[in-house]
Amino acid sequence: MGAYRIAVLPGDGIGKEVTRGAIEVLQAIATRFNHQFEFQYGLIGGEAIDRAGTPLPTETLDMCRQSDAVLLGAVGGPKWDGNPPHLRPEKGLLAIRKEMNLFANLRPVKFYASLADSSPLKADIIQDVDFVIVRELTGGLYFGKPSGRRVENGEETVVDTLLYKREEMTRIITVAFELASKRKKKVTSVDKANVLESSRMWREIAEEVAKEFPDVELEHMLVDNAAMQLIRYPKQFDVIVTENMFGDILSDEASMLTGSLGMLPSASLSTTGPSLYEPIHGSAPDIAGKNKANPIATILSSAMMLRLSFGLHEEANAIERAVQQVLTSGYRTADVAKKGQRVVSTKEMVDEIKAAI
Amino acid sequence: MGAYRIAVLPGDGIGKEVTRGAIEVLQAIATRFNHQFEFQYGLIGGEAIDRAGTPLPTETLDMCRQSDAVLLGAVGGPKWDGNPPHLRPEKGLLAIRKEMNLFANLRPVKFYASLADSSPLKADIIQDVDFVIVRELTGGLYFGKPSGRRVENGEETVVDTLLYKREEMTRIITVAFELASKRKKKVTSVDKANVLESSRMWREIAEEVAKEFPDVELEHMLVDNAAMQLIRYPKQFDVIVTENMFGDILSDEASMLTGSLGMLPSASLSTTGPSLYEPIHGSAPDIAGKNKANPIATILSSAMMLRLSFGLHEEANAIERAVQQVLTSGYRTADVAKKGQRVVSTKEMVDEIKAAI
Ligand SMILES: CC(C)[C@H](C(=O)O)[C@@H](O)C(=O)O
Ligand SMILES: CC(C)[C@H](C(=O)O)[C@@H](O)C(=O)O
Repeated sequence: MGAYRIAVLPGDGIGKEVTRGAIEVLQAIATRFNHQFEFQYGLIGGEAIDRAGTPLPTETLDMCRQSDAVLLGAVGGPKWDGNPPHLRPEKGLLAIRKEMNLFANLRPVKFYASLADSSPLKADIIQDVDFVIVRELTGGLYFGKPSGRRVENGEETVVDTLLYKREEMTRIITVAFELASKRKKKVTSVDKANVLESSRMWREIAEEVAKEFPDVELEHMLVDNAAMQLIRYPKQFDVIVTENMFGDILSDEASMLTGSLGMLPSASLSTTGPSLYEPIHGSAPDIAGKNKANPIATILSSAMMLRLSFGLHEEANAIERAVQQVLTSGYRTADVAKKGQRVVSTKEMVDEIKAAI
Repeated sequence: MGAYRIAVLPGDGIGKEVTRGAIEVLQAIATRFNHQFEFQYGLIGGEAIDRAGTPLPTETLDMCRQSDAVLLGAVGGPKWDGNPPHLRPEKGLLAIRKEMNLFANLRPVKFYASLADSSPLKADIIQDVDFVIVRELTGGLYFGKPSGRRVENGEETVVDTLLYKREEMTRIITVAFELASKRKKKVTSVDKANVLESSRMWREIAEEVAKEFPDVELEHMLVDNAAMQLIRYPKQFDVIVTENMFGDILSDEASMLTGSLGMLPSASLSTTGPSLYEPIHGSAPDIAGKNKANPIATILSSAMMLRLSFGLHEEANAIERAVQQVLTSGYRTADVAKKGQRVVSTKEMVDEIKAAI
């Protein structure tokens, strides 16, 4: 039996409902496996702006740093869209990633036979798809300076800067190789080396890191081609590793393979402190508070937490099996339901998964 | 009857075969409609490196500038992959875009009923898809300075710069609105305004330009969401406008809707000189010289040339109708053929299209 302190940041929109669902599932795990999970709550995003004047209050950050792992819902909403850049909900997300050094974002993409119908892709294309996108999360265009407007020769000009240090590239590519060495032993490194200097350095470093993993195959792929291959023949992938912005675009695209963003969990790992787990979907303001959101992405994120932060493999498997079982039994939230299927609410879905544990 | 001077840059790999095919089709048009097309040939890409020591020789550029339009095949190949950046085939492509001020890249994505089988997407998703991606082609990360490595506090660091001038954004967004006003009157402007300063300026300018087109609807979409929506529900789009790198990624992704890159033409327009037309596929070194390449993307690019550079609408329609007809009759190059279909060579496909004109 173990005791774990989990910082929960529900955030905005459906963030509250889906984290609540994941916590209930974690409690079911605690009971069954005799663990103790202590949940502490913090503000982030729009709600933090409203109640504390900043998208990432110091108290939130302190609490997260002292936790064993962080569970995040989602941030953002139309209410704050007009805010100046430093008072946007997303700034809270970017800040916590940077402050907690959460440089390695893992986004598994896995085929669920029971959901094949809700994917826009043909069944034979997505069958047995099982890969992980490893996205660099604390560098590149998201954080490089300069970033802003200036007047040059009388003309208004704007820049953003794609900046990486060698070490930042090395560590994320290493994470990808370590992961691949425990899986199907193939790394696809995605870049734009025919245009970008940063990609040429990335490719060089990928070659260097590859030498330390002689049993893992390294393949380079241009980002435009990767965007195509992801839907043309996704079975070719095992671990995809790429920089921040490319990873943002490709992982949202890849989410369509499973039929819904509502299915995809993610882990954001640090090597210097606790890691963070969150669904890859957003705050979906249109359905917030309506007991309609799909809680599975967050529930699967909590399974990743058990496995990667606490080493509780059996417990993580129990959650994943429960999700499979409930889907196979035909339960669907509205986002993945097809005609004739039984549509359940967020709460009913959570109850079914708890019951299956 | 008109006389037109067309600069032809076959380039590398299958570039030679597909431009030859398009030229034959243009000659069939010349005969039927009583025009005169004069073709002049120039070097670009890998072949230009081999024979003239640079990926874009001055003679090529001069010839293109004095033409009425440019037809390009493709550049690149493994032979030059180890070359230093300034001696890469792609540099020729980037240089001609910049030197000729080809800032507006139009990439139409259109559903072909006869090819629905070869798309990885379900038929009901792609049916009746008909949109155009307007990609900015001479700015952003592709050309911004600084771009290179440097040592900062003893650490090797690399940067690329996403740079735009106000005027560069204004003119490309204006092209998109002009196009939409002649189509379904909807512009989807794609950016990453929740992270990038350049995207916030882009969004502002899109709002400004929209005021001049009161009958065209403007919608903003984040690039990660756009990567998803393109496969989730592509029928929602009419004209998509975005900056250079986002456009590169999204247009290759979108090519999968039609089943093959081998189908998609593009136009790169300048307002200060001749425009350039090229297939969006690459040089496909693996099948080069084997009489296997799909010439349709280049043939459709020549139709765009007739329409957009020469105002020859009836002639352009004749090419497009001929392509439709040949596809409907069941002819397929290997890239789009399904089991049981008649696979034809590049040459046979060209002959069929000529015969249909
Ligand atoms: C909300 C936004 C800043 C964020 C990102 O771009 O990283 C999101 O899209 C994600 O992928 O987590
Ligand atoms: C070859 C490469 C430099 C080019 C680009 O990235 O623009 C190509 O991918 C394209 O889309 O025309």
